[in-house]
Amino acid sequence: MRTIIECVPNVSEGRDRAAIDAMAAAVRSAPGVRLLDVSSDGAHNRSVLSFVGDAAAVKVAVLSLFREALARIDLRAHRGEHPRMGAVDVVPFIPVQGSSLEECVALSRDVGSAIASEFGVPVYLYEDSASAEHRRNLAEVRKGQFEGFAEKMKDPRWAPDFGPPAPHPAAGAVAVGARPFLIAYNVNLATKDLSIADRIAKAIRHLSGGFRYVKAMGVDLADRGLVQVSINMTNFRKTPLHRVFECVRSEAERHGVAIVGSEIVGLTPADALFAAAEHYLRLERFTPEQVLETKLLQE
Amino acid sequence: MRTIIECVPNVSEGRDRAAIDAMAAAVRSAPGVRLLDVSSDGAHNRSVLSFVGDAAAVKVAVLSLFREALARIDLRAHRGEHPRMGAVDVVPFIPVQGSSLEECVALSRDVGSAIASEFGVPVYLYEDSASAEHRRNLAEVRKGQFEGFAEKMKDPRWAPDFGPPAPHPAAGAVAVGARPFLIAYNVNLATKDLSIADRIAKAIRHLSGGFRYVKAMGVDLADRGLVQVSINMTNFRKTPLHRVFECVRSEAERHGVAIVGSEIVGLTPADALFAAAEHYLRLERFTPEQVLETKLLQE
Repeated sequence: MRTIIECVPNVSEGRDRAAIDAMAAAVRSAPGVRLLDVSSDGAHNRSVLSFVGDAAAVKVAVLSLFREALARIDLRAHRGEHPRMGAVDVVPFIPVQGSSLEECVALSRDVGSAIASEFGVPVYLYEDSASAEHRRNLAEVRKGQFEGFAEKMKDPRWAPDFGPPAPHPAAGAVAVGARPFLIAYNVNLATKDLSIADRIAKAIRHLSGGFRYVKAMGVDLADRGLVQVSINMTNFRKTPLHRVFECVRSEAERHGVAIVGSEIVGLTPADALFAAAEHYLRLERFTPEQVLETKLLQE
Repeated sequence: MRTIIECVPNVSEGRDRAAIDAMAAAVRSAPGVRLLDVSSDGAHNRSVLSFVGDAAAVKVAVLSLFREALARIDLRAHRGEHPRMGAVDVVPFIPVQGSSLEECVALSRDVGSAIASEFGVPVYLYEDSASAEHRRNLAEVRKGQFEGFAEKMKDPRWAPDFGPPAPHPAAGAVAVGARPFLIAYNVNLATKDLSIADRIAKAIRHLSGGFRYVKAMGVDLADRGLVQVSINMTNFRKTPLHRVFECVRSEAERHGVAIVGSEIVGLTPADALFAAAEHYLRLERFTPEQVLETKLLQE
């Protein structure tokens, strides 16, 4: 089976088209890498690049991206709504096919070490790569942001995993880590009452007693006259889409509210949808090997 | 988008391993073709090869397969339970990605013409390629089998579409045509009463008033103590799996019988499962472009 690792770096530039294109080209220049998507947000002043390849190819692409980003971005002049601590802010590695989370953890350490030695940028391992529990959550790692990082790094609890003990003057610091594929999944409810979406979000999310791999909040979709339970599925293999959907449906029913529909925002691995089909059709002995396209992707 | 056409020729040899391997190797030798599967049945004395490629590659593979099959198979000495009229009995072309049924019809005419002129085997276009309504159904085309074909071909209604007006002495005749992907799908019922499976099969199949693209019959699974509705889904885009499953469930309920599970036998296109997930999760604005693996298959 071919190895496919997805890498989704976030860079602190969402307005300068030439700079964004140059960073995309830097990724594309790595042999064996396929750039799948570039999404830029002007208000956030941030872009998300998504690309795939095997471990060696993805490493080359990340280093190439860093080289271009450091030439293009100076955080001292950066303004945007989204919190950030680095020119390249975060580099997640996600196993898609023929690679385990453990292998992606090893890759994140290898790439993190290379970033520190080649560019002098301090590196924090986060998520499944984290070297301590308090460094697992990206929001915690990023707290203080670029402007507060020189101060934050004086605390021994926040010494970097690789690189110098102070932020890079223009490029700050970067979080590098492995995590499972994240699916952005929303369920839309036939009501304008945001408190119902909030209550359902609370019911399903890990934080308040729900499913282990679910983050959720209620969102008002005023233009559609609806509310939405907006969900991050952080491990769709252990907490599958259909289980969350059915739980939302059951909770909504208790409020006398119908489900209008659901939506997947951005990309999903095929397996997440196969699992839903398998569940509802009660498929016996199903394996992804039975899917024609899966066979075509294998070598 | 890359063009993927599946070709699933059936050859009249299911016992001689060396001959089967040689025919598989002949297919594999065509550049740009990937052989996905070879299934042989000794009782039927028949093998089914499954391979994919673009139109040009698949054509080369079929001609290469014919060359080997004509060297290996003499129908005058062939015995087996499965009806057959040719050494290569039937050659279906199935659009999978980046190709339409119409393009596969054109391909079947092109390949059929080449088979007739290169090997002197009479060719019948069938299914969506058929030149007349009475030649659409493979069972009708094959009726009389190898032993009866010299006689059958004297009838002007059964003149071949390409090639000589009499069967090839050792290789008979061949049916070539385009059809949508066929999914073999079974639903297992929690009862030993075969008449219930038969009644449900009748309810869902086209022949007796059911869904247009469904063939079905009841089957006794004595070893499991169950009966099964055994289904051929001949066009899963127009008659989707989930609609048939829900219809079987509703009919079974009326008999007080539960559904144990369902199964897909062999291969299915990913789209058939995506459609089921889309239906049950009530996905809005879903496109296969959102599936990571779909993006990876595209060039």
